[in-house]
Amino acid sequence: MKKKALYPGSFDPITNGHLDIIKRSSEIFDEVTLAIFDNPDKQPLFSFDERKELIMKVIDADNITIDSFNGLLVDYAEKHSFQTIIRGLRAVSDFDYEFQLALTNRRLGKHVDTIFFMTDEKYSYLSSSIVKQVCRFGGDISSFVPPLVEKYLKEKIT
Amino acid sequence: MKKKALYPGSFDPITNGHLDIIKRSSEIFDEVTLAIFDNPDKQPLFSFDERKELIMKVIDADNITIDSFNGLLVDYAEKHSFQTIIRGLRAVSDFDYEFQLALTNRRLGKHVDTIFFMTDEKYSYLSSSIVKQVCRFGGDISSFVPPLVEKYLKEKIT
Amino acid sequence: MKKKALYPGSFDPITNGHLDIIKRSSEIFDEVTLAIFDNPDKQPLFSFDERKELIMKVIDADNITIDSFNGLLVDYAEKHSFQTIIRGLRAVSDFDYEFQLALTNRRLGKHVDTIFFMTDEKYSYLSSSIVKQVCRFGGDISSFVPPLVEKYLKEKIT
Amino acid sequence: MKKKALYPGSFDPITNGHLDIIKRSSEIFDEVTLAIFDNPDKQPLFSFDERKELIMKVIDADNITIDSFNGLLVDYAEKHSFQTIIRGLRAVSDFDYEFQLALTNRRLGKHVDTIFFMTDEKYSYLSSSIVKQVCRFGGDISSFVPPLVEKYLKEKIT
Amino acid sequence: MKKKALYPGSFDPITNGHLDIIKRSSEIFDEVTLAIFDNPDKQPLFSFDERKELIMKVIDADNITIDSFNGLLVDYAEKHSFQTIIRGLRAVSDFDYEFQLALTNRRLGKHVDTIFFMTDEKYSYLSSSIVKQVCRFGGDISSFVPPLVEKYLKEKIT
Amino acid sequence: MKKKALYPGSFDPITNGHLDIIKRSSEIFDEVTLAIFDNPDKQPLFSFDERKELIMKVIDADNITIDSFNGLLVDYAEKHSFQTIIRGLRAVSDFDYEFQLALTNRRLGKHVDTIFFMTDEKYSYLSSSIVKQVCRFGGDISSFVPPLVEKYLKEKIT
Repeated sequence: MKKKALYPGSFDPITNGHLDIIKRSSEIFDEVTLAIFDNPDKQPLFSFDERKELIMKVIDADNITIDSFNGLLVDYAEKHSFQTIIRGLRAVSDFDYEFQLALTNRRLGKHVDTIFFMTDEKYSYLSSSIVKQVCRFGGDISSFVPPLVEKYLKEKIT
Repeated sequence: MKKKALYPGSFDPITNGHLDIIKRSSEIFDEVTLAIFDNPDKQPLFSFDERKELIMKVIDADNITIDSFNGLLVDYAEKHSFQTIIRGLRAVSDFDYEFQLALTNRRLGKHVDTIFFMTDEKYSYLSSSIVKQVCRFGGDISSFVPPLVEKYLKEKIT
Repeated sequence: MKKKALYPGSFDPITNGHLDIIKRSSEIFDEVTLAIFDNPDKQPLFSFDERKELIMKVIDADNITIDSFNGLLVDYAEKHSFQTIIRGLRAVSDFDYEFQLALTNRRLGKHVDTIFFMTDEKYSYLSSSIVKQVCRFGGDISSFVPPLVEKYLKEKIT
Repeated sequence: MKKKALYPGSFDPITNGHLDIIKRSSEIFDEVTLAIFDNPDKQPLFSFDERKELIMKVIDADNITIDSFNGLLVDYAEKHSFQTIIRGLRAVSDFDYEFQLALTNRRLGKHVDTIFFMTDEKYSYLSSSIVKQVCRFGGDISSFVPPLVEKYLKEKIT
Repeated sequence: MKKKALYPGSFDPITNGHLDIIKRSSEIFDEVTLAIFDNPDKQPLFSFDERKELIMKVIDADNITIDSFNGLLVDYAEKHSFQTIIRGLRAVSDFDYEFQLALTNRRLGKHVDTIFFMTDEKYSYLSSSIVKQVCRFGGDISSFVPPLVEKYLKEKIT
Repeated sequence: MKKKALYPGSFDPITNGHLDIIKRSSEIFDEVTLAIFDNPDKQPLFSFDERKELIMKVIDADNITIDSFNGLLVDYAEKHSFQTIIRGLRAVSDFDYEFQLALTNRRLGKHVDTIFFMTDEKYSYLSSSIVKQVCRFGGDISSFVPPLVEKYLKEKIT
């Protein structure tokens, strides 16, 4: 049976930290699906279509697919027969939040488990929010995101 | 002298995690008062009257009373001669926040102390916010709240 | 029914931080019992009798009693009809350890619960080990322990 | 060469915790500059001019200067030849956030380093937000801020 | 290509917490190898042969194998072509330690990555040390370890 | 007045993480003194003379001096007129311990303050203990310590 994993997130926009987790998980699983969370309650910087476009253009592995969901993650996972959810861990505050989320998901979805990758030390400080904030104040974001994402961000923000 | 304790919170709505703390504290203290925080700056999902009604209907211990406050907790505690404030602890981020709160309260109110219960492992992930979020996305919340609260939540949210 | 609580520890020796927790818990409970842990596997600085003597001499509240145990804490608690165990919390590493301990105790002893006091900010750094270490290197420990304990420590260590 | 350090913050308003860090850093560095963050995206309680006025009136050390910035902190630091940024640490959640910030700043500004002071135990619970919240609910803030700041806060809030 | 994972540990003795991680990882990977760490510097309670025997008798999944190592984990992993190391996470202090370990392993072994499972809430307090300590003091360990391990532990300790 | 700082440690042996902190602090202070802790209760791998020799050979900044102490750090600091102690922070467990230590030192020595550097992300996993452990098991330590320390370690351990 194919080993499939789900990597959910807002990806607003995708960063080098996300790309590191994607690469590492694609070496473990036969197929990794990036599930973009289309949260009706939040106003992202990039539209769903823009986020999807950016992801498609900066990823080149064969076993990565892209999808979206807007309800409960475990419902999406069970409906599409995913056994495994992937998350990155950076810091203690991540740990607390992710622990809560993983326990809730296990309680809600019997057949879905969560595994965690430690964020590479190079990206331990990185988040989409930090990237947007640094870009907004005119800082150099070239080591945080791929060149294409940098180009899109500058057009959007400045 | 009667041993009285105060259990403050928003209870928006009350969850099985709250009920566990209430039960355990009612075995230690002669009287436990749930003090619903009526925060003028926040927009709760349930009105004060609805929250109070839900609490009254799901609690059946004799030594529990219900009240509300909208100023400083320690002022309320001192005015009503409470020596002890009760709080639940779930995770490290709780710990930091509750530590700050407890120290501030001790500084502000000389005769009020705070004691903590570790949240039961079954409810270690649970909060009113999580319950509302899961309910909003159509998830099963029957193991998170009493049946009556589940009914009210579904009516309110969907 | 009398509200009884158990405050276990090695008390090797008792510090001002312990005394603060004892005072605060003796205001909440009708009776507080200090249970000195007589660990057969560890070599304390002070013998059990010395630790007991020091505690008796520096405590003057009426509702404090002193005892010892050398098996499982919950067995002692259940045998002597204690409902409640008292612990002090200082820092995140305490929190992790105490959380583990409290969950284990709840699992082992159905009728025993643990409550936590946040250590006063004045004693947030204090432990019996720190006191012994500072004393060993000739530092001033007069604000860490009662005068009598200071006297005994200096005789024992130097 | 003069040792210069930068202490950035919103200072909305300045508290006794800030004053403690300022005093301690002014004993280490030849010159300490308070850089008030003039965030265009946030609505402070006190205007920039009010915050500056309060700081000037409550500080009396010779080697403290006051300035503001509204872009990226490291850009400001490099433009004005600051080698060192000063930050206070209170709790684990601070630690995580400050760690992320310090790593981002080091990545963005090669010649800028961050050093941390542990907040004094007396102020370990204190923040501008807590002070404003306590003041809003009519609590006593006289041990949290200098008398002048207390006066301004009461005029502004009540 | 077969997806193989390595689950290293002392397993002195194996607990229900370990068994939970083993079951969950055996659903994700084609093959999971338990690598018993044969640390020359430490004196385990059970000999290597006893630990191996206990593991073999309490595990019944087809895709689990058992081995040992006594050098550097990453050397073992690379020599036997394992891409992935599995670890369980329980608490913040685990997180810190495991983070350090995972970063060291990534630095030492280019082709080895570490993934983490959150320990089930039922086993969040459990460790081999706790089990041995509770057993030593005569506590009930029947919900912590399989019956056979309980039998061996009692024979060994009492 | 010259700005002097003290960097205490066991340095058993000195690592690239220590060297990073030394370099960064030597850019802030006029003079940095490495104070090797000569703990009578512990058995280091390298003798005091070996540790001192290694430090002298791998450091080339002008404003670094080397000394030792074996009593209380604050006594040494006050006797030699140091205002400032330097420490590196890596993780939450460091934070807790260092917080306790810094508060104790402030209590014991009125004129001594502690400042913290965040460990560079490249060295966030590194400690003398880890280096010794990896070396003992035959791992490659060339990116953890200077070449000379690597040579000494291999001679000592293997």
